[in-house]
Amino acid sequence: MAKKASSSSPSHSGAFVWTRKDIVGLDELSAREIVHILDTAESFKEVSTRSIKKVPALRGKVVALLFFEDSTRTRMSFELAASRLSADTILFSSRGSSVAKGETTLDTARNIEAMGVDVLVIRHKQPGAPHMLARKLRTPVISAGDGPHEHPTQALLDIFTIRQKLGRIEGLKVAIVGDIAHSRVARSNIIGLRKLGAEVTVIGPPTLVPSAIAAMGCRISHNLDDVLGEVDVINMLRIQFERFGSNQFPSLREYSRLYGLNAERVAMCKKNLLVMHPGPINRGVEITSEIADGPNSCILQQVTNGLAIRMAALYLVSQGKE
Amino acid sequence: MAKKASSSSPSHSGAFVWTRKDIVGLDELSAREIVHILDTAESFKEVSTRSIKKVPALRGKVVALLFFEDSTRTRMSFELAASRLSADTILFSSRGSSVAKGETTLDTARNIEAMGVDVLVIRHKQPGAPHMLARKLRTPVISAGDGPHEHPTQALLDIFTIRQKLGRIEGLKVAIVGDIAHSRVARSNIIGLRKLGAEVTVIGPPTLVPSAIAAMGCRISHNLDDVLGEVDVINMLRIQFERFGSNQFPSLREYSRLYGLNAERVAMCKKNLLVMHPGPINRGVEITSEIADGPNSCILQQVTNGLAIRMAALYLVSQGKE
Amino acid sequence: MAKKASSSSPSHSGAFVWTRKDIVGLDELSAREIVHILDTAESFKEVSTRSIKKVPALRGKVVALLFFEDSTRTRMSFELAASRLSADTILFSSRGSSVAKGETTLDTARNIEAMGVDVLVIRHKQPGAPHMLARKLRTPVISAGDGPHEHPTQALLDIFTIRQKLGRIEGLKVAIVGDIAHSRVARSNIIGLRKLGAEVTVIGPPTLVPSAIAAMGCRISHNLDDVLGEVDVINMLRIQFERFGSNQFPSLREYSRLYGLNAERVAMCKKNLLVMHPGPINRGVEITSEIADGPNSCILQQVTNGLAIRMAALYLVSQGKE
Repeated sequence: MAKKASSSSPSHSGAFVWTRKDIVGLDELSAREIVHILDTAESFKEVSTRSIKKVPALRGKVVALLFFEDSTRTRMSFELAASRLSADTILFSSRGSSVAKGETTLDTARNIEAMGVDVLVIRHKQPGAPHMLARKLRTPVISAGDGPHEHPTQALLDIFTIRQKLGRIEGLKVAIVGDIAHSRVARSNIIGLRKLGAEVTVIGPPTLVPSAIAAMGCRISHNLDDVLGEVDVINMLRIQFERFGSNQFPSLREYSRLYGLNAERVAMCKKNLLVMHPGPINRGVEITSEIADGPNSCILQQVTNGLAIRMAALYLVSQGKE
Repeated sequence: MAKKASSSSPSHSGAFVWTRKDIVGLDELSAREIVHILDTAESFKEVSTRSIKKVPALRGKVVALLFFEDSTRTRMSFELAASRLSADTILFSSRGSSVAKGETTLDTARNIEAMGVDVLVIRHKQPGAPHMLARKLRTPVISAGDGPHEHPTQALLDIFTIRQKLGRIEGLKVAIVGDIAHSRVARSNIIGLRKLGAEVTVIGPPTLVPSAIAAMGCRISHNLDDVLGEVDVINMLRIQFERFGSNQFPSLREYSRLYGLNAERVAMCKKNLLVMHPGPINRGVEITSEIADGPNSCILQQVTNGLAIRMAALYLVSQGKE
Repeated sequence: MAKKASSSSPSHSGAFVWTRKDIVGLDELSAREIVHILDTAESFKEVSTRSIKKVPALRGKVVALLFFEDSTRTRMSFELAASRLSADTILFSSRGSSVAKGETTLDTARNIEAMGVDVLVIRHKQPGAPHMLARKLRTPVISAGDGPHEHPTQALLDIFTIRQKLGRIEGLKVAIVGDIAHSRVARSNIIGLRKLGAEVTVIGPPTLVPSAIAAMGCRISHNLDDVLGEVDVINMLRIQFERFGSNQFPSLREYSRLYGLNAERVAMCKKNLLVMHPGPINRGVEITSEIADGPNSCILQQVTNGLAIRMAALYLVSQGKE
């Protein structure tokens, strides 16, 4: 079982002072820091319920969104989060840009830094790209996903949602189901949940759940039905159709039969099971509509909570000093 | 002749209270509601003449633009309209988005709703898509065009411009010329103009003007010259080049000769004929430059008025309660 | 040597009143006007050093960015500059727009003008397009580059950076190295530097440095090493890979050997040589990393200064009266 540096209770974060310039992965963060982000998000969550959803925290600041890889919902979530903090945003997308002209990622980022922006949000297909930029630049960097490596704000919003719904993280049993091998969402969730004291089981076909992943402190299973009875949370990963047909994958129907979440399976679970999905969902593949839209699902609350988490991340790195 | 629930006079709208959550088509709106939108636009039109073109009506609100189909000018018009009301805007474009990942339109819209936006403006190639979203979502929905079905804000700005220029709608004779069969602009104009008591004649080659359209309460003609002498307004539709060469279409030159608007034809019309076009215009095809830029043309005023209409639409649905 | 209407000293611009509606090229501007833009940028430069980088100068105004040709950094620089002046921005990009529907540039611009925007920033592949629009429209126009013709704000930020670093322009010796024939950056720099009294030498292979360019008042050289000892500034142009392999170009390695800037060559220059590059740089082609990142380089300051220059341009044309 993993070490746990802190309880997930908000009240513990009172005296804590944030000092990090960057949020590039949960691997770098202590349990204390993770909890502090969650607690900060808690205070921003209220803003989203107001008629005028704005606070002046980052007025006059500029958040640059550097998307070296396409994204729709993560980009929109960060953009709206920045806007709720009264920051301006500017989008760099690698489509039709100087990337095509052979510029390095570091040069692109340095140029945008030289324009006087205050925070850089970076998505990149290269694992470690946000970390490299965080080291080289004076400007705070937040990762919006780096290849199959980490997607810290997604895991933070998942953990935030679990804490909101179930009141704690410590001691919970969380299942993550799907293509674990290629999923940055899975990796960041495993890391964060372990740091806060949850037990994590990863589930999927052997080709998609490498045994090496056990080194991250999680249990491995290839049989979803075996674990249903004990888990508090099931996080269903999105199946990437483009991978099917490759030799790593069974047929889509086979996958759905073995690892899809449906009413029959949810009936085998605890009453207050929490069903999560990072979206976009494939209805009828990894999850049926009945479950995705049912009483156990918190899929849309995850989206809503994403704004509070990203507001917290933007706010904290803007205040932080190394 | 169509029923008419109301005069188009602004003074009648004093006691009227807007209660609709959505504006997805003129088909759903009563004459009274159409006039109320026009009157509200009237009051916003003045804002556009100020040096600082802003009112705080939607400060702190977020307008999400969901363009499942490309658009330039309608998107810009809505974006500027939202900005003039002090709202923030966020753009979702189906290019390179999760639509490509197989997400349904409803799931995409629900996700964006979950991010806490206040109004959804939707363009979709599927007729009825905005109506479906309006029913399923709590958030107000405005259609920015649904396939060949309706383009309500375009028709509203057209009708607004006619009223501004000619002082009324009731009793006017309006000709709509071109590819009526595939035009959402034509459909919405016919519906709106009929509700306010205008007489509408649709004109074009038989392949592009199906006789079934008469059921909408308009007259059909295949000879432009026959109607020129009597009309108060001619609305020239854009010819979509990509359709030419198909068997529905005559040659471009033939089309232009039979249905193009030129100085010779305008000379056969009333002195104060109003020439309209939804843009972008094909100079020398459906309209000559002399006429497009001439004294009868109100093409650019239509564009200017588009902002006032869209400000009114955004404002009204933001206030409305079902 | 060129006529010089004015010193480049800020103090001279006290009584000057800006009257131009547009900034479309340095060719149209007097030395006095160029200096006035530099001096105005000087006063805006301070804004960029503040924690809250905003002034209310253009609050409530709308800057439309019309990019008929792709751009990343120039677009971002103008967008951020507008935002620092508290203006709203709206982007028109020719991708997937009505340009594809055959609309003329003038009609597109007139439509956007009719939406009530206050300044148009235009990039176009057609030389002279911004000038044409400036003549036809009432709205102020700023060129963001027109084909191989001019890129006035780039040259202004280059000249601003030289003045900032070396204290003056008059009498300086400036080398511009690369594909002079196709470079709008080179052309605008030559024009502006000559007007302010600098001596300009253009350097590159004969195929890329046509002898006709001497008519602009600059010296021509085909041997970089010949001029190194005397110059105060070297502006290295970006090599466009796509042109290599054509018969105008030597091999890339050959080009780099003859015209690339490296430590060996910089050692032959004055101690306080200023190394410039409009970006994006090709490390190891026209410039080595050692030099691009070294003490003589002001490449990132150019980027930073770009915002002050564009703030000045946006501000001045918004105030100007013909």
